[in-house]
Amino acid sequence: MPGSSFGDLFQVTTFGESHGPAIGCIVDGCPPGYELDISDIQRELDRRRPGQSSVTTPRQESDAVTILSGIFEGKTTGTPIALMIQNATHRSGDYGNLKEVYRPGHADMTFQKKYGIRDYRGGGRSSGRETASRVAAGAIAKKILADQGVSLIAHTTQVGTIVAKTVDTSVIESNPVRCADPHVAPDMVKLIETLAQSGDSIGGAITLTITGIPAGLGDPVFDKFDAVLSHALMSIGTIKGIAFGSGFGAVTMKGSEHNDVFEPGDENQVTMKTNHAGGILGGITTGADVTCRLAIKPPSSIAKTQQTVNRSGEAVAIDIRGRHDPCICPRVVPVVEAMAAIVTLDCLLKQRAIASK
Amino acid sequence: MPGSSFGDLFQVTTFGESHGPAIGCIVDGCPPGYELDISDIQRELDRRRPGQSSVTTPRQESDAVTILSGIFEGKTTGTPIALMIQNATHRSGDYGNLKEVYRPGHADMTFQKKYGIRDYRGGGRSSGRETASRVAAGAIAKKILADQGVSLIAHTTQVGTIVAKTVDTSVIESNPVRCADPHVAPDMVKLIETLAQSGDSIGGAITLTITGIPAGLGDPVFDKFDAVLSHALMSIGTIKGIAFGSGFGAVTMKGSEHNDVFEPGDENQVTMKTNHAGGILGGITTGADVTCRLAIKPPSSIAKTQQTVNRSGEAVAIDIRGRHDPCICPRVVPVVEAMAAIVTLDCLLKQRAIASK
Amino acid sequence: MPGSSFGDLFQVTTFGESHGPAIGCIVDGCPPGYELDISDIQRELDRRRPGQSSVTTPRQESDAVTILSGIFEGKTTGTPIALMIQNATHRSGDYGNLKEVYRPGHADMTFQKKYGIRDYRGGGRSSGRETASRVAAGAIAKKILADQGVSLIAHTTQVGTIVAKTVDTSVIESNPVRCADPHVAPDMVKLIETLAQSGDSIGGAITLTITGIPAGLGDPVFDKFDAVLSHALMSIGTIKGIAFGSGFGAVTMKGSEHNDVFEPGDENQVTMKTNHAGGILGGITTGADVTCRLAIKPPSSIAKTQQTVNRSGEAVAIDIRGRHDPCICPRVVPVVEAMAAIVTLDCLLKQRAIASK
Amino acid sequence: MPGSSFGDLFQVTTFGESHGPAIGCIVDGCPPGYELDISDIQRELDRRRPGQSSVTTPRQESDAVTILSGIFEGKTTGTPIALMIQNATHRSGDYGNLKEVYRPGHADMTFQKKYGIRDYRGGGRSSGRETASRVAAGAIAKKILADQGVSLIAHTTQVGTIVAKTVDTSVIESNPVRCADPHVAPDMVKLIETLAQSGDSIGGAITLTITGIPAGLGDPVFDKFDAVLSHALMSIGTIKGIAFGSGFGAVTMKGSEHNDVFEPGDENQVTMKTNHAGGILGGITTGADVTCRLAIKPPSSIAKTQQTVNRSGEAVAIDIRGRHDPCICPRVVPVVEAMAAIVTLDCLLKQRAIASK
Repeated sequence: MPGSSFGDLFQVTTFGESHGPAIGCIVDGCPPGYELDISDIQRELDRRRPGQSSVTTPRQESDAVTILSGIFEGKTTGTPIALMIQNATHRSGDYGNLKEVYRPGHADMTFQKKYGIRDYRGGGRSSGRETASRVAAGAIAKKILADQGVSLIAHTTQVGTIVAKTVDTSVIESNPVRCADPHVAPDMVKLIETLAQSGDSIGGAITLTITGIPAGLGDPVFDKFDAVLSHALMSIGTIKGIAFGSGFGAVTMKGSEHNDVFEPGDENQVTMKTNHAGGILGGITTGADVTCRLAIKPPSSIAKTQQTVNRSGEAVAIDIRGRHDPCICPRVVPVVEAMAAIVTLDCLLKQRAIASK
Repeated sequence: MPGSSFGDLFQVTTFGESHGPAIGCIVDGCPPGYELDISDIQRELDRRRPGQSSVTTPRQESDAVTILSGIFEGKTTGTPIALMIQNATHRSGDYGNLKEVYRPGHADMTFQKKYGIRDYRGGGRSSGRETASRVAAGAIAKKILADQGVSLIAHTTQVGTIVAKTVDTSVIESNPVRCADPHVAPDMVKLIETLAQSGDSIGGAITLTITGIPAGLGDPVFDKFDAVLSHALMSIGTIKGIAFGSGFGAVTMKGSEHNDVFEPGDENQVTMKTNHAGGILGGITTGADVTCRLAIKPPSSIAKTQQTVNRSGEAVAIDIRGRHDPCICPRVVPVVEAMAAIVTLDCLLKQRAIASK
Repeated sequence: MPGSSFGDLFQVTTFGESHGPAIGCIVDGCPPGYELDISDIQRELDRRRPGQSSVTTPRQESDAVTILSGIFEGKTTGTPIALMIQNATHRSGDYGNLKEVYRPGHADMTFQKKYGIRDYRGGGRSSGRETASRVAAGAIAKKILADQGVSLIAHTTQVGTIVAKTVDTSVIESNPVRCADPHVAPDMVKLIETLAQSGDSIGGAITLTITGIPAGLGDPVFDKFDAVLSHALMSIGTIKGIAFGSGFGAVTMKGSEHNDVFEPGDENQVTMKTNHAGGILGGITTGADVTCRLAIKPPSSIAKTQQTVNRSGEAVAIDIRGRHDPCICPRVVPVVEAMAAIVTLDCLLKQRAIASK
Repeated sequence: MPGSSFGDLFQVTTFGESHGPAIGCIVDGCPPGYELDISDIQRELDRRRPGQSSVTTPRQESDAVTILSGIFEGKTTGTPIALMIQNATHRSGDYGNLKEVYRPGHADMTFQKKYGIRDYRGGGRSSGRETASRVAAGAIAKKILADQGVSLIAHTTQVGTIVAKTVDTSVIESNPVRCADPHVAPDMVKLIETLAQSGDSIGGAITLTITGIPAGLGDPVFDKFDAVLSHALMSIGTIKGIAFGSGFGAVTMKGSEHNDVFEPGDENQVTMKTNHAGGILGGITTGADVTCRLAIKPPSSIAKTQQTVNRSGEAVAIDIRGRHDPCICPRVVPVVEAMAAIVTLDCLLKQRAIASK
């Protein structure tokens, strides 16, 4: 309720600032008896960590995770799983110049207004570093969902005006922008590099697809699957928009076009030829793929001199030092998958409670 | 947690199906000592009710609300406020043909999958009628927020391909589509009427603006203001997408364009010339207007014969009888305002808890 | 969270003051597909209603319940079940003299301090009448639990210094104090009648037993079964103490006496010859009966003149008019069962979520 | 919701088993701007740690706490405070003999039934060691409450049949049983030592008093102050009963005796000469001291050979090795204060939300 917890039955609570001793999370409500190895978590963290390619920040952080509780003899025990990632380097000195100044696009001003105090080192709690805890927690959910045949795949579908045209999920991890279209990926890389050299940054779009998800997940009327997933994804700092299925395309569609026609499927199941609904009807999953598109804003930390104000309300100029991401899409991809996994597993557990007798 | 409650400190729990005896809600946590008259609630319900214009369903329902508790001598007492709206006419016979058939675009199939049983009369719990309870609850939040100088205004900014170009909030209630651009409103009306005559429906877009909202609302990292507002708004059945500030426009923007430059304001306050962030930085309100755009899908109930399947999985054709909305935007406008009011008041109360000593 | 909701998956939210138009509740998360008739609920309400015997208040209220939603063709649908009980007679005039005066033992003063306003008619929200909503909600839980073989039985085991010595649950409903010992029940009745004649009231004790409850319910470390059940039962206004199993007897016991020895049982099950633990070890049910004892305070409304103060802080004398219960035990018995049923079903549903795959 | 979190606005989530790498907690919702030093936390942990006197287990553990987040330049920032206590010695070998056997009075059997798997080393999550996390979290709440003039004091009032007769809170920390009566404390020590030598253990009682607590805390009807405090305290493994004010004494009292008479107090305040209600009326604090008495069971780990069963359901004898507490009262005292502090601060914050405008 104070804001650092998410989920009802599978509940994730995170902690940590960018420049404190450590960040991490407690995953409470993880179903017992599932095999879980630290490599299941580390593998996902490695996809998010900085310094992995030419289009991410060159900062090198290992983001090595430690499991503090909840696993016994290689299996989940049903008790809280605590995960910790130590903050390798605390070069707080770098941030002394930010103590009194509000960086444009960042949460410096709003944290000051809300709490009356803020840890100004690297954004403190508002730093994107916080999402590593989400990825670690989501890795657990992902592992359990994989056992149920559910997979979650996100990929970059747009960078600036460059749009992916094809989807080959097998190539996502083999290009630095995590794009499923191998033909446009190099153009995206080039665009990002060009902007980085000019001291600027660029926005993009990510598409998420959840495959193998059973029908029946989501809890009307307020905790509809799309509503909760929107909550989870919009809580990622860089995401400014979300749309399911046809999304904003629905604005110009007729009902006769948008309605997905039901058809007889195998084994008494219902199928649909189209999926304008994005796999959700009335807030409940249909069994078709859940699909949504996300608007990712350009990173606010740019190398250009910017005008702003300080805490005394005076106009000042600011130069943000340090090494930053010119396009955050590739590193947001695993965060999107993690949050979607947390939501999906939570809904799955809730559905078990009412569906089993 | 089972899905019919929303809010932490200002908590709304709704009940009711379209064809049961009544719908309504319990509003728990309403701050005490505020004046509240039944007309404050009825006025908002009248904006949502069917039969109000040529572009809404011609069904006539009065949606008269009754206050069952929580008000004493014209004031809120801090105890739960229960509101009830009786369902005037139960013509369940109309829906006998829907017992075995899944309407395309509706939640018939998914409710059956989730619960193994469904009240098929008029969609039951999945009917848009459920939103009347939200409007009633939101009216209370709106009244209290108005006392704090916070106003919430939604209006239709697009119907099909017709886009509003100007904003004059004073005309919203004087045209049947609730459009703030008096020049395009008649075209929107004409388009909707044409589609209705052809037995079809059309999508649209709504824009929401929250004005006078104090800085500091929203609870990082998961309950950011935009995340919780997305949850609230995406839980409205017809909304398929949401985007804040520049929204999906951010996809093609550079950081140097998207960052809102801080400037010295009056009385030691900070202002911004632009508002690409939509009034929210790091999930916390900046004090600028909160703005978002919503994608509204075309209503699924259309007069055309559609292909579908029945509960036995057999292909059948369906004709949906009854009187339906050809474009739901004008009736969703008050629902959007209501949900936004609930979120804003809840965040305001939470902020009071930490900001006061 | 604001205080009128209880339960996580099976969630009850109540509303209503003693002298408003109605009281009632919303039961959200009720599992679908269970048969439920209004008589299942009315029967329990009749056990709680005033005017049922010589030892309860002679006020006659029918407490007729109406189902507003959530039931379709005689079965639960999984959607919220709203229940309403209209307040038959509003003789608010009776309470005019209480407007400015704080009744000793009642919540008049504390409601005023908390909310700055109070509905002084009959105690308003703090009236015991509120528990009718709990009984109605609990009746639903009880019905579903009965299907799983779980029964919940409470009975009066002490009134003043008169203590029940035997337990024959079949006689509980056949004497007006709801005592399971037919030999002492008449003495209890006589004691209560004597005190009523002298304008006074008397305390008592109630014992609750939950039989047929499966092992494994309760969620360490904070939501242990006994912790949540204590929360539920201590929220009943007249209960001042709760103790499980040996209870306060454990204070003087040795570990070698208090430990229940495990023994081989039927079908690979474990049994215990004793049940000092009250059916709970480490906060999780063992499968043995859950037992607890409750201290019930003497009703605060007595016919004697009492000294008190008014809202201006001046000393005044007060005579409480009206018809009150001289001993509340028999009417609290169904409330205790109701709250215990809500807790048990909620824990059962949560356990299903993790135990099923 | 899965059980390891407590509190609404001031929310504590704990993790850790007795023999894993570490235990600890995340405290989310701590109000910002309060001074907090690690010594504020360590001091309370030292009161709970084993090996502190002749009547506690001789196990030596330092229980040194580390702050991982949420404090900046000596002050709380409003972001989550993560605390970690490393488990110094992992002598898991000691517990090999417990792998297949259920210890009487412990949660071995019930954890196995609930989760289908258990960390059998030293009780795992069900170990009393878990309460160190509560004490650490509670120390933060205590510090903030002290700033508001609220103090929480618990002390041992009974061991076996030896009952404290006087209360001098200044002597509590100067005797090993934490008894406020210096005359009976030596007898309590002697009794515990005698039982320890005979390989047995003994129960006791603790009294808690909250002083300086403002009127108005607690949220009817389900989250009454006494209900939530009961939840919090009954979730401590060794507590089997709780009673407020006159407690079980109310069973034999008349209303004319039990009612606390209101009297004019200073500055327009209301006082009461007696406090049978234990500082709570209608679930809301009156401003008088909140008092309750707790039944503490004798520790289940005793040195005597006991009969029990193993996981295969066969009868076996068990000898529990290791060094255990013969009476847990002195070490539960700080845990009681910690949980009460968490509840009190949480209620205080909730009250601020509705009381401030």
